[in-house]
Amino acid sequence: MHAVFVNGKFCKDPEQVTAKDFFFPGLNVPRDTSSAVGSNVTAVNVAQIPGLNTLGISFARIDFAPHGGLNPPHTHPRATEILVVVEGTLYVGFVTSNLANGDNRLITKVLNPGDVFVFPVGLIHFQLNVGKTNAVAFASLSSQNPGVITIAKAVFGADPPLILMF
Amino acid sequence: MHAVFVNGKFCKDPEQVTAKDFFFPGLNVPRDTSSAVGSNVTAVNVAQIPGLNTLGISFARIDFAPHGGLNPPHTHPRATEILVVVEGTLYVGFVTSNLANGDNRLITKVLNPGDVFVFPVGLIHFQLNVGKTNAVAFASLSSQNPGVITIAKAVFGADPPLILMF
Amino acid sequence: MHAVFVNGKFCKDPEQVTAKDFFFPGLNVPRDTSSAVGSNVTAVNVAQIPGLNTLGISFARIDFAPHGGLNPPHTHPRATEILVVVEGTLYVGFVTSNLANGDNRLITKVLNPGDVFVFPVGLIHFQLNVGKTNAVAFASLSSQNPGVITIAKAVFGADPPLILMF
Amino acid sequence: MHAVFVNGKFCKDPEQVTAKDFFFPGLNVPRDTSSAVGSNVTAVNVAQIPGLNTLGISFARIDFAPHGGLNPPHTHPRATEILVVVEGTLYVGFVTSNLANGDNRLITKVLNPGDVFVFPVGLIHFQLNVGKTNAVAFASLSSQNPGVITIAKAVFGADPPLILMF
Amino acid sequence: MHAVFVNGKFCKDPEQVTAKDFFFPGLNVPRDTSSAVGSNVTAVNVAQIPGLNTLGISFARIDFAPHGGLNPPHTHPRATEILVVVEGTLYVGFVTSNLANGDNRLITKVLNPGDVFVFPVGLIHFQLNVGKTNAVAFASLSSQNPGVITIAKAVFGADPPLILMF
Amino acid sequence: MHAVFVNGKFCKDPEQVTAKDFFFPGLNVPRDTSSAVGSNVTAVNVAQIPGLNTLGISFARIDFAPHGGLNPPHTHPRATEILVVVEGTLYVGFVTSNLANGDNRLITKVLNPGDVFVFPVGLIHFQLNVGKTNAVAFASLSSQNPGVITIAKAVFGADPPLILMF
Repeated sequence: MHAVFVNGKFCKDPEQVTAKDFFFPGLNVPRDTSSAVGSNVTAVNVAQIPGLNTLGISFARIDFAPHGGLNPPHTHPRATEILVVVEGTLYVGFVTSNLANGDNRLITKVLNPGDVFVFPVGLIHFQLNVGKTNAVAFASLSSQNPGVITIAKAVFGADPPLILMF
Repeated sequence: MHAVFVNGKFCKDPEQVTAKDFFFPGLNVPRDTSSAVGSNVTAVNVAQIPGLNTLGISFARIDFAPHGGLNPPHTHPRATEILVVVEGTLYVGFVTSNLANGDNRLITKVLNPGDVFVFPVGLIHFQLNVGKTNAVAFASLSSQNPGVITIAKAVFGADPPLILMF
Repeated sequence: MHAVFVNGKFCKDPEQVTAKDFFFPGLNVPRDTSSAVGSNVTAVNVAQIPGLNTLGISFARIDFAPHGGLNPPHTHPRATEILVVVEGTLYVGFVTSNLANGDNRLITKVLNPGDVFVFPVGLIHFQLNVGKTNAVAFASLSSQNPGVITIAKAVFGADPPLILMF
Repeated sequence: MHAVFVNGKFCKDPEQVTAKDFFFPGLNVPRDTSSAVGSNVTAVNVAQIPGLNTLGISFARIDFAPHGGLNPPHTHPRATEILVVVEGTLYVGFVTSNLANGDNRLITKVLNPGDVFVFPVGLIHFQLNVGKTNAVAFASLSSQNPGVITIAKAVFGADPPLILMF
Repeated sequence: MHAVFVNGKFCKDPEQVTAKDFFFPGLNVPRDTSSAVGSNVTAVNVAQIPGLNTLGISFARIDFAPHGGLNPPHTHPRATEILVVVEGTLYVGFVTSNLANGDNRLITKVLNPGDVFVFPVGLIHFQLNVGKTNAVAFASLSSQNPGVITIAKAVFGADPPLILMF
Repeated sequence: MHAVFVNGKFCKDPEQVTAKDFFFPGLNVPRDTSSAVGSNVTAVNVAQIPGLNTLGISFARIDFAPHGGLNPPHTHPRATEILVVVEGTLYVGFVTSNLANGDNRLITKVLNPGDVFVFPVGLIHFQLNVGKTNAVAFASLSSQNPGVITIAKAVFGADPPLILMF
């Protein structure tokens, strides 16, 4: 049987793929931000779009409640993130890895609509809504399955707890 | 001298980087779409954000004029693209690479705000504004420097011309 | 059961592989070049040689009819190509990706037997027989499954057609 | 001039390299563990061994004080770690990235001399001396420059502080 | 069904992994070095630790008999090796790939406990116990499945023999 | 200044490259095979074609004297090789890496003109002219700088000699 590929790996044959294999709808819909931290991440990766398999990229929408909606400090163990603000005002930042003297620097910026910011692979970063209105950002990540580790939850809320390690 | 890195490659020392190295503003500003094809791509890659070096991702805003603004058939020789519609209605598609029988399939979809679509690395793709209003999309690409080849221009407008090859 | 590998990935156990898994015959045989364009590509990739799996390389023979046999403008979405002329005289070239000013340059060369030329990944390229005899080239590609997109066919002959996008 | 390489990248010519370019001494020497946390990491990466350039691996010795010497929760943003206990008894673990239900699992093990354990790339992990004697481990990391982020310090001790983000 | 990953590839779900998937015991136990060459390699790779899948690293313990125990000239076709001496005195070395003039240089060093040495990917290397006692080393390799080719055996002892090729 | 690329890395600007940067002539010319082993390898890699930089492929012509011209057992530490016979009859083979039982298998084949064979990365392989005429092969390698290690010379002829290690 002849071997055919869409994107370099066996998957569906190109004879079989449809637009649906490369599509995900609804990132225009505001998400509920009434969680404890006041943010909501809608991830669009290979689990939502099978056609992303082997293609090294994924996407997300992040909604923030007014007055302090927070996407709390987290890392993506397998991806860099590039983010654009769609609506509202975000205070964002990442912490460098340990410097030669053991210290860490916090690199921050206030972002307004249309501002783009980069969070390098594996570094702890956050986004905080410092405006009076909802905020919305789109983000793209350099992996079909970037993973996410929410630091506080992973440290204080792991099962069993890790807290004694601090 | 101790060696320190931000993102895995020598570059600036983390002691020296600033938020500016990871920042680009202004993707909220509508672009002029009065070009011949009625579209305008604002690229944000390692040439605009030096901190993207080695990080394998970049970004773009695409503006489309009403009634047929077109981002004409093109490829990115080094990247997959993931796109989200921000405003308007786009008819988008890509052409598969040659099938076993030599044919090519055109995979298309009409996208509305919030719809996400993937264009696999190296495949010819386009976006067309089929609505009566401006359209805007954000796109992310899986390379710090994806490159772009506008097919018609590369084929018919290269210097010297390639046209006789068809 | 103990896990054994030939080339870094599960596949056949080395106890089971034979020379046949790494072999393909017949690239010395002239191919029929009576097609519309006057060329014929015989591809030898992972579909023909299963032992190429994960090894990042493949091969091809290209035959050209005299007086204008053409391997028409095409791209390989996942591979660079390196070609050597075996017989005849070829006029070859590739088009750069869009320059900063939006233009594209056509880089060309007339190749005689023994001449080697490189076509970088994803760029549009072609080979044309400008001699009075048959021409033959061997080419190698930096992927086990490079893919090919014949530009004119993909653009004008896709099913459904893409032609209106120009 | 002819181009020669040791390991695939321009660097020193093989005519010029010496054993010193691939050597680092002294990992047998016990380190001072009288720090606040009672551990001491001696890193051996491309900054110590220039010949590691492009080779994708590095090494470390970790010393732990008796009765609770701790290598506190940290991540390596660019590497997986494989560790072997040389002396003493360690309680080690890592936290999975967020599960589908938002939770994180803590995967732990008590390690004795000769035990090997793996900490996947980017995941938060720790090692704790639960014995009455010094403990020593060797670790290898899948990057010439893995980086390290000590979570508590990065979160609570960054300059400026990140603490309000929790 | 939702898709979850431990280390970036489908495998076990994080809900299912246990510490056992990342663990291998017993590298503290001296191995029998009464073989013909007087050495014994205990490999710990993805065949022993399934959790290493996709993580690009593995480990080994090497035991050497006194007075000439030898890990004879070999290569790892898919990995660089970094080695630390735990006990005894080793004379180690690697041979550069062919220089521009066709020669090969032998880069050697006598290593004592705590000394670290690097053997670049694919190069022929060896370790020889030049002390009067047992010697032990730990080594890490930059592949989950590095492979090993013992030169003399592969050349003189292959089935069928390769010897006539010299 | 705007940043432009030919093939994904800074190099020459596309405004500056010429066909010469991607070209190497003369692989049609028979080489002198009067060396001790009766073969002659003409390598065409990034040292000969600067445009190959970052593109992951290179090329070679191999000439064999009649009645036993030999490209003796060697490895490429950083590349897989795919070979096609242009003229003559070759007996070729590679040795598997050590099997689970410690043995190595020799995989061989007699190749005639037009036959293609694959030698996986890092494995010891050879080609022997078993015909009465000159033989010629073209080979491509999956690295811009594959390196070569001639086993006998590296083992018996290194400076200083490695021979005592056997």
